[in-house]
Amino acid sequence: MQEKALNSPGFEIDPDLVITLTHGDPIMFEPFWKEEGQNATVTISGWEKMSYYACDPDDICWFLEPDFANEVLRLHRIVNNAATNGCHIIPGAGSTQLIHATLHALASIEARRHPVNVVSAAPYYSMYSDINSLKSALYHWAGDAATFKGDDNFIEIVCSPNNPDGMIRHAVLSNNAGRRVHDMAYYWPHYTPMRGPADHDIMLFTMSKATGHAGTRIGWALVKDTDVAREMVNYITLNTNGVSRDSQVRAARILKVISDGYEFPNSNGAGQFFHIGRHLLADRWRRLRQAMEVLAKFSLPRFSTEFCEFFKEHAQTYPGFAWLRSEDESINDCGDFFKGINVQIRNGRLFGAGPNYVRISLMGSDAYFDGFIKRITSVG
Amino acid sequence: MQEKALNSPGFEIDPDLVITLTHGDPIMFEPFWKEEGQNATVTISGWEKMSYYACDPDDICWFLEPDFANEVLRLHRIVNNAATNGCHIIPGAGSTQLIHATLHALASIEARRHPVNVVSAAPYYSMYSDINSLKSALYHWAGDAATFKGDDNFIEIVCSPNNPDGMIRHAVLSNNAGRRVHDMAYYWPHYTPMRGPADHDIMLFTMSKATGHAGTRIGWALVKDTDVAREMVNYITLNTNGVSRDSQVRAARILKVISDGYEFPNSNGAGQFFHIGRHLLADRWRRLRQAMEVLAKFSLPRFSTEFCEFFKEHAQTYPGFAWLRSEDESINDCGDFFKGINVQIRNGRLFGAGPNYVRISLMGSDAYFDGFIKRITSVG
Repeated sequence: MQEKALNSPGFEIDPDLVITLTHGDPIMFEPFWKEEGQNATVTISGWEKMSYYACDPDDICWFLEPDFANEVLRLHRIVNNAATNGCHIIPGAGSTQLIHATLHALASIEARRHPVNVVSAAPYYSMYSDINSLKSALYHWAGDAATFKGDDNFIEIVCSPNNPDGMIRHAVLSNNAGRRVHDMAYYWPHYTPMRGPADHDIMLFTMSKATGHAGTRIGWALVKDTDVAREMVNYITLNTNGVSRDSQVRAARILKVISDGYEFPNSNGAGQFFHIGRHLLADRWRRLRQAMEVLAKFSLPRFSTEFCEFFKEHAQTYPGFAWLRSEDESINDCGDFFKGINVQIRNGRLFGAGPNYVRISLMGSDAYFDGFIKRITSVG
Repeated sequence: MQEKALNSPGFEIDPDLVITLTHGDPIMFEPFWKEEGQNATVTISGWEKMSYYACDPDDICWFLEPDFANEVLRLHRIVNNAATNGCHIIPGAGSTQLIHATLHALASIEARRHPVNVVSAAPYYSMYSDINSLKSALYHWAGDAATFKGDDNFIEIVCSPNNPDGMIRHAVLSNNAGRRVHDMAYYWPHYTPMRGPADHDIMLFTMSKATGHAGTRIGWALVKDTDVAREMVNYITLNTNGVSRDSQVRAARILKVISDGYEFPNSNGAGQFFHIGRHLLADRWRRLRQAMEVLAKFSLPRFSTEFCEFFKEHAQTYPGFAWLRSEDESINDCGDFFKGINVQIRNGRLFGAGPNYVRISLMGSDAYFDGFIKRITSVG
């Protein structure tokens, strides 16, 4: 199914069509960017950005586009979700490449025993456990941080707000000898109340979840330690010899539109991405909770209201994913239930939880989300 | 030193400035793309290309932009440098990522002993030996294919025309149990006479050397075996979760301009990239050979004239790099000689050859190349 059809207004999916809610493909923000029109358009001439080098070849991060760096810093300043002072900015092909770069760096630069154990508290983002498939000799996935029995030879990935369950997370392992990576992909005002700037040694962000541009394959790391930054750059140099300059230019333009919306607001409030994103997510969560109540088979996480320093008011949490727990004893495997109604979800097992959990993406197209709600309601 | 200054017409570099000829940064083709103007410009709206998926999510290569695939096939058809029939096309972040993807795939899918030995005949592209720094548990660099003493547990990388020396290469190891990867980055008519379509199991190409767009970080693999293609896609999915769609869109535009130049030629011959590229390279080689004759310390490779099936005439070879051998007994280390005249080159040792060899990039800016010729001439 092409995205084009799925995003056409009024398009309705066939009742027999499989609805895919497995991936966090952030199609729901497309209408905002359509509304922005020319503002968000990027134009690159054939003779521009030809060189490998995006800045001075002697810079630590020789592939960082200066405009992209500036817009990253500007948006963090406006949203106040990350302390950027004294940080190196390292772009990557999505936070996926940055996670590999980080693990490679942390496992390389210290006198560690290889492979280093990579852990994260369950339920954890299923991608973390996939790192084993890349067969690094430096690190390997060692599972749930909460049950980790090893010594200090570990790297803990802390995803906050957490994928899949939307919870605010802190490191579980307190051993100072271990290292921590903070995956902050969802620490933006449309998903969760802003509790002030996060301030960790290594923080990862990505366009995919911040603005909805998954296809640009651009993320960024904020890194305090220069040796770690250098080794991450070294990884990206060896792995892909830099990061697409075209995508960085486009990402800079996209971030600029969001920042402009807040620094130079229209009188009608149009063009304020986080407001509109929150509104869209709030609406989907309202409809989801309603449908789930009718269905009466699953429970959804509950989030307490928190003061959001960005919206300057008490605000709800609206994660990009819904983490469903079965409350119906007749359902042993939630995956089977959703398969039965032709809905593809991601099984809880992949996140280190049981088959009584599933993750459902709420960031897809209207057509898929509407179709999903319709099916749930007709079953209930 | 910013590329901007280096590419301004008439810009002259300071006699004390270090001239960097280490990397194959293909800045020399910039004037062609300036001349093309609007034709080669790409424009992407904020709402386009947001999804991770560039085509049907169920396609083997779910991140391949259809327009990019079409333009790749079209250009190969026009140039007739690769047999594409029945091949899977897999885009990657430059041929760098594709090499890792290929090695990962070949080392994964067969019952091999890990790590598999990766070899290439010396002098070999220095990047191949860098794969060890990524510390894969699946494969490791085992050096010169010509002196490889192992059994059938190997993958041979065949670079043809070869980086650094421009020679046409064939596999050195004849053991059928081993696997071969053909790095065809330089098999284009501006560098070498076209001897008909190459027809190998795995062939790698890259925008960087085909068109001069290194910063887009786009390459492509032509792969015959479906299992290998699937495993390469799997690597890229795990490593970067796809390949920048923006860059693929731009690459498609750039390739289209080149193909249009031959399928819909202007009466004045303007816009024919390979003709202009060959002309530029021929001029640099002429000046380089002249200067080296005056200097009388180094020899350059000699290439026999071959019939080029693209230009339909006998044509010379003009590699993107010059591979210099010291012919002066007083020069023990060529690196020291060039350091002495403030020219950064890449030492022969990195290519598995001796310090009596150096590689010099001929693809850089006019300012660097002119400055280099001036210095050589003033020393001689």
